[in-house]
Amino acid sequence: MTFDRARVWDLLAEYGARLDECRYDDWLALFAAECRYRVLPRENDERGLPAGLIYCDSRATLEDRLMALREANKYNLHSDRHLIGLPRLNTADGLVEAPFAVYQTDQEGATRLFATGLYRDRLADAGGSLKIREKLVLLDTFAVPTLLATPL
Amino acid sequence: MTFDRARVWDLLAEYGARLDECRYDDWLALFAAECRYRVLPRENDERGLPAGLIYCDSRATLEDRLMALREANKYNLHSDRHLIGLPRLNTADGLVEAPFAVYQTDQEGATRLFATGLYRDRLADAGGSLKIREKLVLLDTFAVPTLLATPL
Amino acid sequence: MTFDRARVWDLLAEYGARLDECRYDDWLALFAAECRYRVLPRENDERGLPAGLIYCDSRATLEDRLMALREANKYNLHSDRHLIGLPRLNTADGLVEAPFAVYQTDQEGATRLFATGLYRDRLADAGGSLKIREKLVLLDTFAVPTLLATPL
Repeated sequence: MTFDRARVWDLLAEYGARLDECRYDDWLALFAAECRYRVLPRENDERGLPAGLIYCDSRATLEDRLMALREANKYNLHSDRHLIGLPRLNTADGLVEAPFAVYQTDQEGATRLFATGLYRDRLADAGGSLKIREKLVLLDTFAVPTLLATPL
Repeated sequence: MTFDRARVWDLLAEYGARLDECRYDDWLALFAAECRYRVLPRENDERGLPAGLIYCDSRATLEDRLMALREANKYNLHSDRHLIGLPRLNTADGLVEAPFAVYQTDQEGATRLFATGLYRDRLADAGGSLKIREKLVLLDTFAVPTLLATPL
Repeated sequence: MTFDRARVWDLLAEYGARLDECRYDDWLALFAAECRYRVLPRENDERGLPAGLIYCDSRATLEDRLMALREANKYNLHSDRHLIGLPRLNTADGLVEAPFAVYQTDQEGATRLFATGLYRDRLADAGGSLKIREKLVLLDTFAVPTLLATPL
């Protein structure tokens, strides 16, 4: 299955933008009905250790997790900014990879680098619109500096 | 009105590159004859407070402001680097949004994150070439760390 | 000679991704048989001073340099993350420019901004596949904070 490049880039741009706008339900709508969302240090991935920070293997668990994150977020007020770099498309097996950096700005107005990493996505065409079937967020660090209070 | 995706991305790339090269007159040339340029904390935008750091509602005020910035810049020597992420195009209403990060390098050679935020642009076709009719720079912080000495 | 935009972006995305994956031989394969690779503070470039941090004017010297970097890297364990911004294509003279930021994560899991700068590439079509004939890495700082232990 091949994807139109522009649609893939639009999907990635939407992904980051909806998180930055705190539109979490709209963010959820970017996932397919059957989906998987995982956040993992890249080290674990390279060593074949599946243990991660977040592991949602269905839409329902992702919705649950999102609800929990929102609750936690009440005690960690900040805003996010996702910067997503040029993506790499492997049209042969439907994989899309894109490096990212997330910056957080706290209540005092200080902006800091929160995390860098790589998105490894598997996309699916769902009735004419492109959706995320699998999202693997590979974090460059095993030590996330503060509470992981919003999805990455 | 719809825009060709490639031209929009070229315009954004040019926008950042000309600022980083200190080619401010060429940067100005990316704006339409009738234009608006505003720099605003995202918080103010979300609360509907229009008060911003920079508010230029015509080409003439933008040119004036640029002159003032250049003067201020003499006392804040640094170089800029704009990193612009994947943009989001809303072809229906001619809006383009792109996240950005600006890094500054000072005279001692130290590179620091200066600001992150979102560009919200309205583009116009001016005689076959794409121009910026409105540029809203939404800063993630209300507290810009140092003097805003160059356009963002 | 004009290049297809998508292929240029793919090449840049591959460039960063292969470095981040420590696939240095595959990174080398992105260069043409006859190639040049230089790392230079932007200040030197602007003043016309060719003296740089790395100067490889052939594929052989680039291979040598890569070997030396790998040796040095044993004493500076870290992982890289390249974020490459929207590129600027000058199809008239075959130049491609793209801003970048490189983040490094150390053994303790701390992620820091390592360097920002601009790629100025000259590409060549080598038997149907796009290759780098010249790569000029213009660093925003003359003071690279730590040992330059991996290619930029």
